[in-house]
Amino acid sequence: MKAATPDKMRFQLLARDPSSRARRGRIETSHGVIDTPAFMPVGTQGTVKTLSPQDLENLGVQIFLANTYHLYLRPGHQVVAELGGLHSFASWPHPILTDSGGYQVYSLAQIRRISEEGVYFQSHLDGSTHFLSPEKAMEIQEALGADIIMTLDECTPYPTTPEYARASMEMTTRWAARCRQAHRRNQQSLFAVAQGSVFLDLRRECIQRLLDLGFEGYALGGLSVGESKSQLYEVVEGCAELLPADTPRYLMGVGTPEDLLECIALGMDLFDCVMPTRHARNGSLFTRFGRLSIKNAKYLKDPRPLDEGCPCYTCQHFSRAYLRHLFLADEILGLRLNTLHNLHFYLDLMRQARQAIEGGYFSRFKEDVLADLRSRPEREASQELEGLGGPADAKRVGKD
Amino acid sequence: MKAATPDKMRFQLLARDPSSRARRGRIETSHGVIDTPAFMPVGTQGTVKTLSPQDLENLGVQIFLANTYHLYLRPGHQVVAELGGLHSFASWPHPILTDSGGYQVYSLAQIRRISEEGVYFQSHLDGSTHFLSPEKAMEIQEALGADIIMTLDECTPYPTTPEYARASMEMTTRWAARCRQAHRRNQQSLFAVAQGSVFLDLRRECIQRLLDLGFEGYALGGLSVGESKSQLYEVVEGCAELLPADTPRYLMGVGTPEDLLECIALGMDLFDCVMPTRHARNGSLFTRFGRLSIKNAKYLKDPRPLDEGCPCYTCQHFSRAYLRHLFLADEILGLRLNTLHNLHFYLDLMRQARQAIEGGYFSRFKEDVLADLRSRPEREASQELEGLGGPADAKRVGKD
Repeated sequence: MKAATPDKMRFQLLARDPSSRARRGRIETSHGVIDTPAFMPVGTQGTVKTLSPQDLENLGVQIFLANTYHLYLRPGHQVVAELGGLHSFASWPHPILTDSGGYQVYSLAQIRRISEEGVYFQSHLDGSTHFLSPEKAMEIQEALGADIIMTLDECTPYPTTPEYARASMEMTTRWAARCRQAHRRNQQSLFAVAQGSVFLDLRRECIQRLLDLGFEGYALGGLSVGESKSQLYEVVEGCAELLPADTPRYLMGVGTPEDLLECIALGMDLFDCVMPTRHARNGSLFTRFGRLSIKNAKYLKDPRPLDEGCPCYTCQHFSRAYLRHLFLADEILGLRLNTLHNLHFYLDLMRQARQAIEGGYFSRFKEDVLADLRSRPEREASQELEGLGGPADAKRVGKD
Repeated sequence: MKAATPDKMRFQLLARDPSSRARRGRIETSHGVIDTPAFMPVGTQGTVKTLSPQDLENLGVQIFLANTYHLYLRPGHQVVAELGGLHSFASWPHPILTDSGGYQVYSLAQIRRISEEGVYFQSHLDGSTHFLSPEKAMEIQEALGADIIMTLDECTPYPTTPEYARASMEMTTRWAARCRQAHRRNQQSLFAVAQGSVFLDLRRECIQRLLDLGFEGYALGGLSVGESKSQLYEVVEGCAELLPADTPRYLMGVGTPEDLLECIALGMDLFDCVMPTRHARNGSLFTRFGRLSIKNAKYLKDPRPLDEGCPCYTCQHFSRAYLRHLFLADEILGLRLNTLHNLHFYLDLMRQARQAIEGGYFSRFKEDVLADLRSRPEREASQELEGLGGPADAKRVGKD
């Protein structure tokens, strides 16, 4: 029996971990359920790179994130709307979240001019000029038709001064108010993005202002942009405790498996990051005992799967030797098999985290996983592949 | 109930078409059955580009062709042997055919020196020097462990003189005899390759010499290298009638859907060609009414599937508009969805051909299909994408 699906998003808190602030929840949307804590793979241009919707369903993906900036430029939000919206266009009948486009304007566009009104930018594709305002961000996201949409924010650069961070945060909150005002489609839930760089007082002030406006969910943006781990965790901890218990909390663009576990423990519910998919295309593969770099010569004749005991399609069928061969021979199948494995790793980590919260043993689970991850018998991956890859990387295998 | 699988290949002729020389047969190998006429997708480096073994099984692929030249150079035939052979390495438990490497030496290697003993060549990968003799071709193919292996031949260049073609054909037959002599593994069936360019008398003489030696199957090589369609069909017709009824007949490297139907009518059983897979990666897609080029602007908002009525995964889930978007956005998923569709088209054509032979209406079926294919309401594909693509193409999406 399928329960009647609500028009409007609903969030239920199902369990709390006694030893941390970790929460187990469930978001219901008109396109289906999202069990939290959840990891959302990044589907930049309306496809999670190398994977089909069937692959995503087989992995247990419940929601993916698409980038408004990319889809606005190509094929255009109106084209997507005419084809029935992003769910229909991408043949994905399950939940979708779109970001506001602000982050890609910050990271990809060639020339930007930010004013109170919005941001002028030049397309990274053809240099054409565009203007993105809070109202425009709503219009585009409503045309795309995702279940969860985001307010336009300025991703505050890092490092920055307290003065710049304050001005930027204040503008971000005024933009959030304009988004809320412009938001029309009731079936789409609008989440607000908080900024404030690494200054906790600014972050908390931003959240208070957003709470006063009232949104269906709250997100922390502008993190994972160069700050230290301790700064990241401090901001997340200080913000999460201000956020209401009965709305989803989304940490944008984070992160490593370690980051996910730490931030789940601090009370965050939703995460997205290009790391599992982009690393996969660079041959950097997650295992319980740390990452391995599949191009390493020592795998030439290695008949073992990437991760013994891993039930994913890749590990059930292929050796490290074959995956290395595919990678060195530039075979597309290798990129897909690597992506299937890395996403399975992330999604399985989240499944286990949810079970641990339900069972009341999340802190122990987290420490066990972290100890295994840090054991890294093979240090090759951490040396070669820090960060999320530069332009050369993007050129080779496409940028998320 | 699974019948006991034979150690040695067995070929059964199941039906003959009354109105043509088309035959319906079945090859049994220790790795499974191949229903003929059959199209074998090309899995150059041990993978049919963009597809997993699961994808191939879902498409109904019963056998694929792997290139000895590529696997010898990378990862090396001994590496594959140590990992249990190609079936195990590529996780493909069904039949495999390997070519001899001769064609890639002809088309890819940088420097070649052909002598009676064999051929010296430089790797297209790193310029390293190698020597391929009939005995070495057997050694490599036995290490790879395919079910059907091929004699080493010289792919006679086109155009050529009758004198060169005769000398080349005679050497090819002497090499075939040496391959037969060197062939050890009984589970592998050795097929001989006939040469002779477009000179039918040379072709027939070559076949007679190969028949005198005795092989488990016979192939026509050195076609689809620039000769006209009428030359191709004339050679195939004149050769097929010499070949024994009780052995499989393999037309190497051919061809278009039209070529397959014409050559099935002339009595050929096995075909391979990069056309469906390479065209897919160039956005040229087969439909009943001819090819379409998915990058064409007219598909920007086209909600229809590639081919209405096509039951493939791509056509059941995605619009031309989405496929165009994926192609223009350089998304790997697009290459895979295109490949799934094109291979489905080829395999379905062969399924229908087998049914038509069984039903005794192959000639009518062939004329109906050819009439539809030639109707081509959209001529874009034939203009842009003649031939199998040059180096620029190969750079973009990998060469089969």
